[in-house]
Parts: sequence; C-alpha cells; structure tokens
Amino acid sequence: MSPSEFAVTFTPGGETVTVPAGELLLNAAVAAGVPITAPCGGHGRCGKCLVRIERGKADAPDDHEREHLTDDQLSVGWRLACRARVLGDLEVYVAPESEVVCAKPLENDLIEDVAVEAAVRQIVVELPEPSLEDQRSDFIRLRDALAGQFPLRDARLHALWRLPQVLRDNGFRLAATVRDDLLVEVGPVNGHHPLGVAVDIGTTTVVAYLVDLVTGQHLGSGTAHNPQAQHGADVISRTEYSKTTPDGLARLQREAIGVVNQVVAQALECIDAGPECIHEMTVVGNTCMHHLFLGLDPRYIAEAPYIPVNAAPISVAPRDLGVRMNSEGRVFCLPVVAGYVGADTIGVIAATRLTDSPEPVLAVDIGTNGEVALWSGERLVCASCAAGPAFEGAQIEYGMRAAPGAISSVEFVDGDLRIETINGKPALGLCGSGLFDAMAVVLQAGLVDMMGRMVDAEKAKSLSEKLAARLEGEANTRRVVLVSADESGTGDSICFTQKDVRELQLAKGAIRAAVELMLKECGLKADDLSEVLLAGAFGNYLRPESAVRMGLLPPMDVGRIRGVGNAAGAGAMMALLSLPWRQRACDLARHAEHLELARRADFQQMFMETMLFL
Amino acid sequence: MSPSEFAVTFTPGGETVTVPAGELLLNAAVAAGVPITAPCGGHGRCGKCLVRIERGKADAPDDHEREHLTDDQLSVGWRLACRARVLGDLEVYVAPESEVVCAKPLENDLIEDVAVEAAVRQIVVELPEPSLEDQRSDFIRLRDALAGQFPLRDARLHALWRLPQVLRDNGFRLAATVRDDLLVEVGPVNGHHPLGVAVDIGTTTVVAYLVDLVTGQHLGSGTAHNPQAQHGADVISRTEYSKTTPDGLARLQREAIGVVNQVVAQALECIDAGPECIHEMTVVGNTCMHHLFLGLDPRYIAEAPYIPVNAAPISVAPRDLGVRMNSEGRVFCLPVVAGYVGADTIGVIAATRLTDSPEPVLAVDIGTNGEVALWSGERLVCASCAAGPAFEGAQIEYGMRAAPGAISSVEFVDGDLRIETINGKPALGLCGSGLFDAMAVVLQAGLVDMMGRMVDAEKAKSLSEKLAARLEGEANTRRVVLVSADESGTGDSICFTQKDVRELQLAKGAIRAAVELMLKECGLKADDLSEVLLAGAFGNYLRPESAVRMGLLPPMDVGRIRGVGNAAGAGAMMALLSLPWRQRACDLARHAEHLELARRADFQQMFMETMLFL
Repeated sequence: MSPSEFAVTFTPGGETVTVPAGELLLNAAVAAGVPITAPCGGHGRCGKCLVRIERGKADAPDDHEREHLTDDQLSVGWRLACRARVLGDLEVYVAPESEVVCAKPLENDLIEDVAVEAAVRQIVVELPEPSLEDQRSDFIRLRDALAGQFPLRDARLHALWRLPQVLRDNGFRLAATVRDDLLVEVGPVNGHHPLGVAVDIGTTTVVAYLVDLVTGQHLGSGTAHNPQAQHGADVISRTEYSKTTPDGLARLQREAIGVVNQVVAQALECIDAGPECIHEMTVVGNTCMHHLFLGLDPRYIAEAPYIPVNAAPISVAPRDLGVRMNSEGRVFCLPVVAGYVGADTIGVIAATRLTDSPEPVLAVDIGTNGEVALWSGERLVCASCAAGPAFEGAQIEYGMRAAPGAISSVEFVDGDLRIETINGKPALGLCGSGLFDAMAVVLQAGLVDMMGRMVDAEKAKSLSEKLAARLEGEANTRRVVLVSADESGTGDSICFTQKDVRELQLAKGAIRAAVELMLKECGLKADDLSEVLLAGAFGNYLRPESAVRMGLLPPMDVGRIRGVGNAAGAGAMMALLSLPWRQRACDLARHAEHLELARRADFQQMFMETMLFL
Repeated sequence: MSPSEFAVTFTPGGETVTVPAGELLLNAAVAAGVPITAPCGGHGRCGKCLVRIERGKADAPDDHEREHLTDDQLSVGWRLACRARVLGDLEVYVAPESEVVCAKPLENDLIEDVAVEAAVRQIVVELPEPSLEDQRSDFIRLRDALAGQFPLRDARLHALWRLPQVLRDNGFRLAATVRDDLLVEVGPVNGHHPLGVAVDIGTTTVVAYLVDLVTGQHLGSGTAHNPQAQHGADVISRTEYSKTTPDGLARLQREAIGVVNQVVAQALECIDAGPECIHEMTVVGNTCMHHLFLGLDPRYIAEAPYIPVNAAPISVAPRDLGVRMNSEGRVFCLPVVAGYVGADTIGVIAATRLTDSPEPVLAVDIGTNGEVALWSGERLVCASCAAGPAFEGAQIEYGMRAAPGAISSVEFVDGDLRIETINGKPALGLCGSGLFDAMAVVLQAGLVDMMGRMVDAEKAKSLSEKLAARLEGEANTRRVVLVSADESGTGDSICFTQKDVRELQLAKGAIRAAVELMLKECGLKADDLSEVLLAGAFGNYLRPESAVRMGLLPPMDVGRIRGVGNAAGAGAMMALLSLPWRQRACDLARHAEHLELARRADFQQMFMETMLFL
C-alpha cells in the first residue's frame, strides 16, 4: 500500500477497502460494497448517511455536518459519509438506518403460498444438430424440441437475431425464454433468469418489488415519492391539472413513468442485472394513477357519471410507455372496478383472498383515497371515498414517515400522555401509527370533544394539570404539545393540532360512512363481519384499538381487525408470479359491484354523522 | 381569368387546369390530377415525361429536350413535361408511357375468388351512452357492444388514447378497427378504411400491392429495383457481403426496408392516405431476401447443411423493422421451405392452388433463383437451382426491361429473323420474352449448335444469306445482330451474343435439371404433367414454344404450359386478404418436402446433359 492510500473497514459487516487519501467515506463505502443511502445525492443536505468513526483519522466536520449532528454526536465520532474524507486507516460503523436495504422482500405473508407460474418462463433445451438429412431451420428445430411442453407459435425478432450464434456457440444447447406461445429470448444456459417487477403506484408513494420469475425469489425493492404530488396531493387536483394545463396529461404520464423507472432501477441496484432482464411488470394503482401511467385521459372520471377510459386488464409494450425493461417484455395493468375503485383495490381483494371466506369480510385500503371492499359471503361490493391526504401524513402539520425519531405510539397513562419514538431517538414528528394513536388518545383523554374541537381554556380546567399544560394556542391554532421543544430532536415542540384533527375527522368520516353504507347495502351489521382487514402502509401500523376509538371503524371486537400491509402490492406480486392468480384477479374485477356513494341520497347524512366523534 | 393565367387541357382525359404563366407542364399536370412519371425528379435527365403540345404556346425546348428528342419529334410538338413552360392556353397530349399508372391492380386472376377475411377488420358500432346506472368504462362499453360478433380481449394504448374523445365527439358512434381480439384503432365512422399491402421482395425487383382491407379493392402498386443489387446480383454474393463486410447485414437490411418503404410510398401516392392507414403487410421473397428483410443472419444458408434461422411464418411489429405503416400494424412474412426455397415459392404454390389438382402439376418460378414445385397428386416436392441473373436480364448484354422499344418477339420467318418491339418503337434492347425468343430462334435457325456455340464463318455458309449476314465477331465475342445500328433507337446495333447464350444455357440447364430430378423423385414423366405453370415476370412473357424449344422445359404439348404472372405476389395478396388463405399457405409450407439437389449424386450429371441444346 502506498503511503497515500488507506484501508477503510466498515462495521458491523467487516468489509475492507483501500482508497486514496482524501476519498469520501461515501465513495469508499460504495467501493467496499456497503451501499449507504444518500437521498440528497451526497450534497450534505439530507443528513441521512450517518456513520461513526470508531478508530483512525478523518478530516474535520464541515458546516453541513454541524447542522445535522449535535455536538454530542460529533464528539463520539458521528459523521455524514458524504462529507467525511479518509486521512488514515479507518474503522467505520454504518448506522442501520443509513444502509441501503437491498433485496428487501415484500413484507407480506399473503404471497407465500403462491406457486410460480409466470407469464414468462425459461426452459433449458438441447437440440439435435442439423445435417443434410435434417435441414429444419434453427427456430423450427427449437420449436419441435419444445413442442411437448411449450407449444411455440411464433418468435420475436430479437430472439431470432441471436438464435443461430447462441446455438452454434453452445453446442445446440440453450436457455429459451418463452411468453405464452412466443419465443422472446435465447441465451446460454448459465445466463440470467428472466426477472419480473410488481409496481404499486400510489398517489403519494411508488413501490417496486423485484422477483426472479423462475424461482419466485424476491430480489429487492425500491420506493420513492410520486413526483406528480407537485401538481396536487390528490387525484382530483391531478386530474384538474391534466385537464387545464397544456401538455398536462403528457407531463403527468412522464412523471409516472419516470418514478416507476426510478424505483425499478433502485430495486435492480441490489443485484447484478440490468433492466433488459425484466420481462414482465405488473402494475396496480388507483384508477387515476392507472390512467395517468397509461397516458389515458382521466377527465371523465372526474365528472358525472365518472367513466374511466378503460377498466379492463391491459397488457402494454414497454416502449409504448417508455418503461425501461426488456423491449420484448410486457407491462400488465390489473383491472380497475370504477373511477374511484382501482387496480389497487383489486390487488387487495385478490391478495387477501377476500372472497374465499364463507363469512362476511371487510377490507379497507387506507391511502390518499380510501377504498373499501365488502365480501358479504355472496356479493363483492366496492366503494371509494375521498379520505384526503391526512392518512398519508401529507396535510398533518408535524407529519413524517416512519423513520427513526418518528412518534409511533401515544398512550394515555396516569393522567398524561406517554410518547414513544422509533429507535427511541429524539422526536422529529408524527408517523401514521402515532397520528392515529394521538387522535384516539386526545379523545380518550377529553382533549377533543365529539365535534372535533379541542377543549378551550375553560373546559381544560377539568383536565389533569399535566394534560392541561399540553394545550397551547387558541381556536384554529389550538394544539396539543406531544414533545416539548427542549426534548425534541428538532429544537421545536412536536404537536398534534386542531387542523390535524379536522383533517383526520374528514378522512375517518368518509371511510366510516362508506363502511356503514356498504354494510347497509348488503343487509349486514358490523357484528356480522368475521374480519376487518386494514391494507396500505398505515393499515399495518394503525392499532385496531385506535381505529375503533377514533371511529374509523364501527365499534367491534378489535381482535377481528388485522393489518395486512401493502396488500395491493402483494396483489401485483401475485399477478406477476402466477397467471392463474392474475386470472383470478381479473375475474374478481368483473364480478365486483361498484357502489357509487355520490349518487346515494343517504351519503351526505351518513357522512355528517360519521364525522362526529361519538 | 387574369391575363397572366392560362388554361391547360390534358388529353386524352380532358382534364383542365388554370395555371400562372410560366408554370411547368409537369406541375400543371399534377394540379390537373394527371400524374406524369418523372423518375429523375424533374431534372430533364431521364426523358420519361413525354408530352405533345397539340395546340397553344409553350416556351422553346431546352438542351435537355434536344438531347432526348429528335428534331422530328420536336417539330410535331413532343416535349418533356418537366422542362416545358406554359405561355398560353394549351392542349397537351400525355403519352401513355408517361402517365403514372395509379391504382394499377395486381394483374392476376388468381386472387379473384378470394373472399375478404383479413387480419384487421373495421366495424361500425353505436354504444349506449353512460349514466350513473351504467358506469362501464369506455373500452368495456365498446367491448360489450361487439361481444357477439368480435370478442375483444384487449386494446392497444393508441386506440384507448383516442377512445374517450372519439366517442364523445360522435355521439358514442364509432368505427372500431380490430385485429384478432385486440382493438387497434378507433375513429369516426366516415374515416379511412384500414389498408393492407402485399410486398414481393425479389432479388432484383421489389413490388408492393396496396389493398383496402374492408372492400378488398386494389388501390395501387409500386415497384423498384432492389438496391441490394449493388452488393451482388444473386443471393450468394449478398450473403457473402453480409458475412465479410462490417455492418454488412445491417446495411442489407436497411436497404431492404428502405426499398419496401419506397414501393409502399409509391403505391400510397395513388390515393389520399398516409402510411398510418396501413395496418397489415404481407411479405414474400426467397429465403435470403426474407432473412435480410428481417435482419436474420443468412450465413448458415450458404454453407452445408444450408440451415435458415427461421422457416416458420412470423409476425413482426413494424418498428422492429423500421417499416413505415401504422405502428399498431403487423408485418407478416410467409413461411419458407428451405435455404433456397422461399416464401415466394409458397406464395406461388398457394396462389396457383397447385395442390388442389387431382393430377400432377409443375410450377416453375423463374427469377434470379429458379424455384420448382412439383405436386405429384400426393406429394408436394420443392427444389431450387441457381439460375443466375440471366432470366432477369441482368447479365444479358443488350438486356432491358419490358418498356417501349424493347424487342419483345423474335421469329424465324422466310429464312430470316423477324423482330418486333414494344409499341413499335425503334429497338433499344431485349426484354425477357424477346430474349427467350431469340434463344429459341437462333437454335431453330441453326445459328447456335447443340453445345451452345454460335456457328463460325465456315458453318455459316450453310445458312441463308440474310442470316449469315447477321453474324459478327469471333469466338467469345461472336453475336447475332438483331437490329442494325441505323435502324435501332440507340445508334448502335442490338445483338444477341455468345455470352448471352452461355448465361441462358446455364440458367435453363439448372432449371431443367431440377425439373427432371423432381419428376424422377416422384416417379413421373413430363407427359404425366397435366399442367406446367410459369410464374414470375418472365413466366408471363415467355412463349411456351420458346421454353420447350430452348430446352428449359422437357418436350411436351405446349398447350399445357401457362404463364401465371407474379404468382408469388398474388400469394402475398391472398395471405393479406384472407386469414384462411394465409393458414393454407402456412400448412403448405409445413407439408412441402424439400429436395436438396446439391446432395444428390445425379445432379451434376443431369446438369451436364440439360445444358445441351438437344
């Protein structure tokens, strides 16, 4: 090793790499195969690439680091990997939250018992060599060899372009990639398996799950904010944007395609494969996201009688969209049910096997748009409601993602609130579960009345002293201080506000009204439900007690309420892994009844009632 | 009419147009809807745009016109339309050979009784309007309306992009264009019909036939030389070029695609429609042309055991090739039989309904490559032979296309040769029929012996004086003067040469050997053949007597020999118009037996014999 080079060892993994003096730790980590997250692109702005220097010499922290790190942190060696430079042999601890989590499986046991039977298969086959007695063409030779198992009808040009050389370079033994009755690719036997990716396009968040289509193995995932949010947080405002802005629809589509390409690229980073290995993509999303992704005009969804351009399943060539994957691959969009009941709902219904139950089951997918599916035991009824972005944390004043420092739990104990944050870090904001808890607890503690008003100074007198002390501000700016400024990680207090209550009130009121009307439609009561499934990211974190206490769900045995995680994504994954499952999802969409709440005379009345905190 | 404008009337049609003073006649003709051919682009170089001013004033002829036209022609008013300018009211006669022949049908009665049942159909349909009681999406609404007649499974994005507006602009009535179970386009009811084009890619000539896929009406055609000819006249030399020149295969493919786009554009010129109206293309060609068009490597066709990459029928997206047509359209290439028995042969077999005959029939497709198909009544046997380019006129010293001035007939009458040219114009060269006649007649008249040698001065003494006088030169440069220099249209004599005889000898020897071996293979004799069909451009012009006399075909009743024109093109057209016919062509290819002549011990012996003029 020359004197101008140093060894850097990363813990806890122990990966070691030699780098020139002055190299950034971030680059050293990449070289060592320890990918560190750097959402801001390594400019020192986001403060996410936390590492701790355990031993050895680095340069002095810069202004960015002093901004993101406390003196205490700096004193024990915490640094930002994108700013710190190597000045000697180092041992560097990578904080768990800084690591790019590769090959993160879809955390969902819904897909565990799905047998792989994908649209694209790879078959290894050995062909008899040609002779003057057997002059069959290369393709017909292959077709004949596969005839028993996989009757081929045609071939893509790309496969034929490679076929003669692949055959002759490999002694007439090859791996054939087949879709339906089409040969789509050929290669040597030890080449890549065809990959698939399941994409869930949410109004707020876009997620991709990468999978090996031969083994079914989950290889990685990617996630990003939906960049369309800049034109509006909900589907109505995006539809409006597409209608009123010249080139608006094209722009929204470009953004959808762009973010899908981005999350797929993220997922691919986890393995040594390029986008050309991806042969199949399945997509779920609400009807507006589905339309914008496909470039279909959503304007007639927004006005009565709320008609989508296409609700049927559709299979599209990647280049018609600009999706980066094998050019011979296909993008399969699951069907939608109606203008506001999308492919994501179909994904949830399929993934949760809702209609397999002999008894009534309710599934609620909580996102920017709330979608509710009720299986009565005989009928499958779907409805939607504009829950607003509250459940995504978007309009919540101190809202944040579920990351270290987020308040994840609020309890009412001993006359005061007990707060917990993720990883016990100083509080930075409220994530979903903390938000629902806060709502439930302020009701329980009497900080908010049945109309959703935070109690005024007069009424606060009946509260415990500790509780009363948490109330600040007046009327519309009234708020409950959850964590005081001197205890928080931001230097400001973290509050749950009157405005937050109003947002949540609208959201829960809408969903609850939908639930009540659907039960009524099917002649059922809440007690008849054998199970209530909460899908969506929040569904997983929302405590059943809080859901009932805040009135999102009717009063019921909380033991029957179960979070099922990203069931929409799981549905996309199942449609990716298994054609029979895909067919089942398509059948479900055809048989689902849509309940158009807007046209019901009883909706507004119900909504008024369900907005109350009773 | 202002004094600076004049009326120009074109005869014989009588179309009249008003143009500014000084306008070119070529432009006036275009404005009058009388398209005049101008292969050189209106630069006065080709001399093809002949018109005669019958009455009125034009400018004086320029140098270009003086070069192309004789004083006699100029004196009676002949002009080049691309040079002559309007200086007064005019009456202009357009020479028949100058007119662009638009909507020229495929001159082939083979396709007359094919019922239209194309891959792409257009259906006019009226949908119930949506309401809150009927919220079906636009596509499902359309799908349901068509369900009885045309079960749709999916839709192309391009169609869905337009669907909502087309529906709402036309009161939910539209014309749906459907391929198989896919919706490929939507439009107003009075829009374009989907068009199709049948393409015959010959080694020398490429032809396109345009057709309305709804009515089956022939709309136009286009034709051009195959630009690949610059890299070699035959398939062997082009394969060699593709193998040895860097980027050679890509270049040959580009040229093939380019010329196909060119002939299709030519055909489209005849009507008011763009390439996006073309939804289906069928392609025939020999195996090498087929491979080069598709970008498939032809190298393994050229070496034993002569294996094509793909012999099966294949359907390709236009953009995978760069073919200019509707991006949702398909390019269907008919199957090939073997390395040297191509899709053109399948076209001939299908179009001539060869296998419908209860008795043996032989079909010979005469081109640069000779392909022979024999239906024994039970077996369909195909073979090919390298006929060389002689039958395309390429290596014939005075060869030319069948155009005015071409010698089209040579007879032996009253001890001398009697020559006829097309349109009686001064002779410019020999076209196909004239060439075969010349060969037959020089044999008949004793100018050439059985070995193919033109008689020397000594032997010429036994000929008539007039005949003997036609012989010039010695040995390899010996030739028969058909038209003397002072009677020809070129100022030089037009001859049939010793070299021409050698080329024809090789060509007819190869084809005849193939015919003999195939008859032998099937245990047949020439007398057993109920019919012999001569396909290809030459086949139509080759007089049966000449074919037998020169030994191209075995001695037989010439009444059984029949020209069937461009049967390969007719086959492509039938596969375009009718899916059942397409399926029949594919079935024929699967059942055809290929006779590999090269591997037969008896081929060389047979070839030596069939080269003789017996």
